[in-house]
Amino acid sequence: MESTTEYANASRVSDTEGFVRETPERTLSLTVSYNGAPFSGFARQPGQLTVQGELEQALSLVFRRHMEVVCSGRTDAGVHALGQVVSFDVANDELEGRNLYSLRRSLNALTHEDITVREVEERQPGFSARFDAQWREYHYHVCLDEVPPLFMRDFSWYVHGQLDIDAMREAAAHLVGEHDFKSFCMAASAVGKPTCRNVHEISLSREMIMGEGILTIKVVGNAFLHSMVRTIVGTLVMVGRGQRKPEWVREVLEARNRTAAGGNAPAAGLVFWRVQY
Amino acid sequence: MESTTEYANASRVSDTEGFVRETPERTLSLTVSYNGAPFSGFARQPGQLTVQGELEQALSLVFRRHMEVVCSGRTDAGVHALGQVVSFDVANDELEGRNLYSLRRSLNALTHEDITVREVEERQPGFSARFDAQWREYHYHVCLDEVPPLFMRDFSWYVHGQLDIDAMREAAAHLVGEHDFKSFCMAASAVGKPTCRNVHEISLSREMIMGEGILTIKVVGNAFLHSMVRTIVGTLVMVGRGQRKPEWVREVLEARNRTAAGGNAPAAGLVFWRVQY
Repeated sequence: MESTTEYANASRVSDTEGFVRETPERTLSLTVSYNGAPFSGFARQPGQLTVQGELEQALSLVFRRHMEVVCSGRTDAGVHALGQVVSFDVANDELEGRNLYSLRRSLNALTHEDITVREVEERQPGFSARFDAQWREYHYHVCLDEVPPLFMRDFSWYVHGQLDIDAMREAAAHLVGEHDFKSFCMAASAVGKPTCRNVHEISLSREMIMGEGILTIKVVGNAFLHSMVRTIVGTLVMVGRGQRKPEWVREVLEARNRTAAGGNAPAAGLVFWRVQY
Repeated sequence: MESTTEYANASRVSDTEGFVRETPERTLSLTVSYNGAPFSGFARQPGQLTVQGELEQALSLVFRRHMEVVCSGRTDAGVHALGQVVSFDVANDELEGRNLYSLRRSLNALTHEDITVREVEERQPGFSARFDAQWREYHYHVCLDEVPPLFMRDFSWYVHGQLDIDAMREAAAHLVGEHDFKSFCMAASAVGKPTCRNVHEISLSREMIMGEGILTIKVVGNAFLHSMVRTIVGTLVMVGRGQRKPEWVREVLEARNRTAAGGNAPAAGLVFWRVQY
């Protein structure tokens, strides 16, 4: 995280990645929902509509200076969020005469209609939405109806035919725990980076959402690699369809190669649900 | 219901409205979901995109003749349906070499993407989606979150501020039972027609749908007048906001005048949920 403002009384601390930065005077966080459909993902890219770009533009207008945010987890193009968290630093005098409700109102007025700022909170100075996260939770929605979903069309993956959910649960159990998830990471992103992650929970539950039959796959972990949740879902669906046995998932892990796993499940079915600090 | 085909061996029966018609050889029903947003309502209108128009056009292509359907309940522009039911008659030879699954597939391929035919069933000859219905169920979704809904935006009414749900329940209790609902019927539609209806249930429950806080108002009754559910919801929300006392609803009923009731709740929040035969 780089701050673009200098603070008179800021002290120097080192964050979890070891480099030294200034302790800011005040740190705020936003809890943000978005419908991922219109965005080229979360991360700012020149000339593209992105969630980060929209939030930073709105914050820059409000605070009348260039603002940057840190997020708890980047999401790809088309992926939704219910509780994405972003953090940013401000100086004491920048909050004078403001309250957090009016800040939320301003941000909601200034951002794209497919972004909703649900909450604005003040955190400990230096709080990082990324480094202070204890765990992240994603929900993936698969539609199990005989016909394609209508109300959940933009928020689910319609999988033709029956799925063996017990087999998927058995397969999922092999993924829980601390593992090298290199096989579940988009190849280019894994080069030269640590690929061990701790998955705390993968649970599958059937529910009716707006009258449509949905299998919700909840995945909770300390952190996730690029496209990891969608690869886990694509792999579990192969097992659910009977194309692979549940034990195959162990081989996939051991292969440490992206081509060993199933395909990427479509972005629209994924919601970055929440982050625990 | 008027049939456009003549059947050699059809007998004559009188339906619930007393006029005489031919008994058809075979009668089918479709259970249909639709996202109401793009449609000018259910009922066929020349030059307009309507659900009935789409279904009849698809059926006419499949059966290679002019087809008309009868529905269990018309819905206004923008109102959704999960389980709308329509019925239509066919001759024996028109079903030869067809099965109901392939008929469903054809209809889903031929209709607008915001219509899904969920089920095709054969019924007793002469079955009417309208006259054989025992009761109808509607769900109305009100969003109660502090910020506008995102995932439920197209399927809910965002009501600013808190609602007193206990007061709304008390008000709703006055509407349950057999009453003259003239005050809850769009004025033009009530002229010279019976306006008594039997409301079996109005229940209010809070739920989370896609992570958003929704108040679902379920209304069940034998039949409904034009815009009756939306007027009930508009009236209950006035009570929930504290603008009226729960007992006021009794006065509204007694007035037998549309202007006595609350406004029409927006169409997007309403889903025609299901019909019991």
